[in-house]
Amino acid sequence: MKTLSDIGLVGLAVMGENLILNMASKGFTVTAFNRSYEKVEKFLAGRAAGKTIRGAKDIPELVASLAKPRKVMLMVKAGQPVDDFIEQLIPHLEEGDIIIDGGNTHYPDSNRRTAYLKGKGLHYIGTGVSGGEEGALTGPSIMPGGAPEAWEHVQEIFQNISAKVTDSNTGETVPCCDWVGEDGAGHFVKMVHNGIEYGDMQLICEAYHIMHDVVGLNSDEIADVFEQWSKTELDSYLVDITIDICRYKDTDGTPLVEKILDTAGQKGTGKWTGVTALELGIPLTLIAESVFSRCISAQKDARVAASSILSGPEKVAFTGDKTVFLESLRQALLMAKMISYAQGYDLMQEAAKEFGWHLNYGGIAMMWRGGCIIRSAFLDNIKAAYDNNPELNNLLLDPYFSKTVQDAQGGLRQVIGQAVTVGIPVPCLSAALNYFDSFRTARLPANLLQAQRDYFGAHTYERLDGPRGEFHHTNWTGRGGDTASTTYDV
Amino acid sequence: MKTLSDIGLVGLAVMGENLILNMASKGFTVTAFNRSYEKVEKFLAGRAAGKTIRGAKDIPELVASLAKPRKVMLMVKAGQPVDDFIEQLIPHLEEGDIIIDGGNTHYPDSNRRTAYLKGKGLHYIGTGVSGGEEGALTGPSIMPGGAPEAWEHVQEIFQNISAKVTDSNTGETVPCCDWVGEDGAGHFVKMVHNGIEYGDMQLICEAYHIMHDVVGLNSDEIADVFEQWSKTELDSYLVDITIDICRYKDTDGTPLVEKILDTAGQKGTGKWTGVTALELGIPLTLIAESVFSRCISAQKDARVAASSILSGPEKVAFTGDKTVFLESLRQALLMAKMISYAQGYDLMQEAAKEFGWHLNYGGIAMMWRGGCIIRSAFLDNIKAAYDNNPELNNLLLDPYFSKTVQDAQGGLRQVIGQAVTVGIPVPCLSAALNYFDSFRTARLPANLLQAQRDYFGAHTYERLDGPRGEFHHTNWTGRGGDTASTTYDV
Repeated sequence: MKTLSDIGLVGLAVMGENLILNMASKGFTVTAFNRSYEKVEKFLAGRAAGKTIRGAKDIPELVASLAKPRKVMLMVKAGQPVDDFIEQLIPHLEEGDIIIDGGNTHYPDSNRRTAYLKGKGLHYIGTGVSGGEEGALTGPSIMPGGAPEAWEHVQEIFQNISAKVTDSNTGETVPCCDWVGEDGAGHFVKMVHNGIEYGDMQLICEAYHIMHDVVGLNSDEIADVFEQWSKTELDSYLVDITIDICRYKDTDGTPLVEKILDTAGQKGTGKWTGVTALELGIPLTLIAESVFSRCISAQKDARVAASSILSGPEKVAFTGDKTVFLESLRQALLMAKMISYAQGYDLMQEAAKEFGWHLNYGGIAMMWRGGCIIRSAFLDNIKAAYDNNPELNNLLLDPYFSKTVQDAQGGLRQVIGQAVTVGIPVPCLSAALNYFDSFRTARLPANLLQAQRDYFGAHTYERLDGPRGEFHHTNWTGRGGDTASTTYDV
Repeated sequence: MKTLSDIGLVGLAVMGENLILNMASKGFTVTAFNRSYEKVEKFLAGRAAGKTIRGAKDIPELVASLAKPRKVMLMVKAGQPVDDFIEQLIPHLEEGDIIIDGGNTHYPDSNRRTAYLKGKGLHYIGTGVSGGEEGALTGPSIMPGGAPEAWEHVQEIFQNISAKVTDSNTGETVPCCDWVGEDGAGHFVKMVHNGIEYGDMQLICEAYHIMHDVVGLNSDEIADVFEQWSKTELDSYLVDITIDICRYKDTDGTPLVEKILDTAGQKGTGKWTGVTALELGIPLTLIAESVFSRCISAQKDARVAASSILSGPEKVAFTGDKTVFLESLRQALLMAKMISYAQGYDLMQEAAKEFGWHLNYGGIAMMWRGGCIIRSAFLDNIKAAYDNNPELNNLLLDPYFSKTVQDAQGGLRQVIGQAVTVGIPVPCLSAALNYFDSFRTARLPANLLQAQRDYFGAHTYERLDGPRGEFHHTNWTGRGGDTASTTYDV
């Protein structure tokens, strides 16, 4: 054990403990600190015993144990506890020391804290850490942002403990950790990761629902289908665990998944992604629908009541060719997933403009390529798309993606058509197709909408045959004035 | 002109002026005030000449001109200017005086200001005012909330100047103004009104798009269809103006609407509604999609670029029975509209729970029945639904609404099926059907989602065969611990 620790970690919940054990396993010496010292003692005597891990009784002891520039990583509850620990640390730190927040922080807080600590001569890193407890121990995805000067000091630790993947484009082994960008960019990217996770999960649920209720497959047969799909571009962690889940039997030998109550919980990061998209004006429709799907699933009692009042189409047995239909469903899932990622990247690109961040879009795909919940094969294609064209405006315009979605759209259309006919909800598949059909349409019906806004609110409009930025108002009724609106209609 | 004015109004933009003229036309005496006195002088010498309207040079003169309890209505830009005027007014007002904000204020600000002014012994009213400039002059929809004690003092003025409608359920004439509820409830309801307006407008645009691009109707034929529809349950202001718009010819004799650029603007209240729904966990899918539709319409350059890269299905001429299809489209629009209102009411009901408000749901329908942009015949049915059952959990469970949507669902399914096949985006029609099919489904596939969350994050699940509130965790892989999650996965 080195005389001075490489890093200190505050907060000995399972995530914090596992990160410490991960760091120690890579040869780093770590000081563990927790609000109650009892937890530290228990950890040192237990899981940390015999490892390059020391404990600290209080903040001064923690700080004194660290090599300079000191690095203190907080793994505490997001929000006020982070600010509280920052305030406790500040008096003991010196210029150039680094505070790292590895919690589930909302990115505006990281924006604020980066600026605040810069004013104190300290560096702040807000980092997303994904992969849950197991990932923390064996190799998480790490998405650090904040003060760029701090990166060189934490890079070795972070890239050592992170998951590693092989970039199939280059054959190189790369860590699932790289510098994301300034201020709260790390937590922003982690938020988008979680939003994408919501979307991916809901898409899998919609496919499951269709297999179960339209095609009439049982859980084992559904597992078999997902297993076939996992050998295609859909290869991903979430598909893999779905196979395990569909195969898992309850004590009575029947599939456990069918006994689970259909009310989804959530912890808020999907919601943040949707709110951010609305605020930045980016059409993140699929993730928003996935959040709302959890909301409506939670209205279980209302749904049960409604189910006896509102009936849908008659149930009919599936008579088509199952193999053909399941291939359509696979195409539908693949295309919808691509669209969800395109929307998520659109959001990150807008945030980069809004906040002045320099984001490495291909690098982000590699950070998500391993260690985290959305790890999947096709992130390599996203990496390749941005390697190929760093200025790519929308993922769907990359040759690989544009070809794939064009080929897959028939499947998506067929599946939605079938779901619409038989009354199975497919909010995220629908959101994907509607986005695709909107995005590839040069002329949308918003001309009528602008006319309406001009009619009732004198909001003015531009013309197709005139230059952009030239605004016109029409007195549509012949009545009323022709004052342009100064009021607050929509 | 009375010696003391009944009310003072601050802010002589067109909305403010028109409200003053409306008040004077009903026999009230009004003091007009504006930051620059020049505007007051111009108003007094112009549109206000000979009416029961006086001007004030400064705040003390304004306040001195008012009968007690004094009522000062702000029609200024939302945000800081409202707070600034409140601070200027406070030193001159006495206990029991009333400050009214008629601007486009975000409801949390009205929550805050109601409490703040209560602490100063003053009453605050935050009121939605809808109907644009013309409505302000001739009879707007007014949605006041705030300090309940203040209502009796402004009721006469507000209900006199508001629009009046006949409640077709009772035959009574009612003002489109009633007390909404506590704190920011008035501005909350105005926000939901605007969100619903976004949804209604986008739905009309989708119907227009289908008539134009699927059925191949020209603008005059589309106007004819909307005119037929306006004689049915779809009778509404927005349909009426759409008829005018589709018929309006440019100077060259061709329809002006077809020359308008298809990039929708927005002023943010639809966005607020979507954000609030995400925050309160209510599946307000249709309005959220309508906001995102404006966002994607604004990406005009990207869409034009994408249109040459991403192709959809081959265009085919419409070969079906136009009359039958157009009736399906009418049913689709009606059903989607009902679902949008059901979602909006769900949001208001949740807000009432969250903030402890006592909202009058039938009364809100009547406030929207006239004067405002979403005025329409079928608000009478909403009023009737809540008269019939004030505890109604979801509008779709009311007998009239449940029967109508069940009868209309075939049309909605047919139209979406057609749009999906030919590649016309129908985000809001799709959102409506997906909500309907989710809401009437007793078992959604969220069981799989909960299993996934338990698999990777040990988030636990409930069982269909166990009591609610009893949480289970499964070690799905046989590996790893069985600690329930303390971390931040989604």
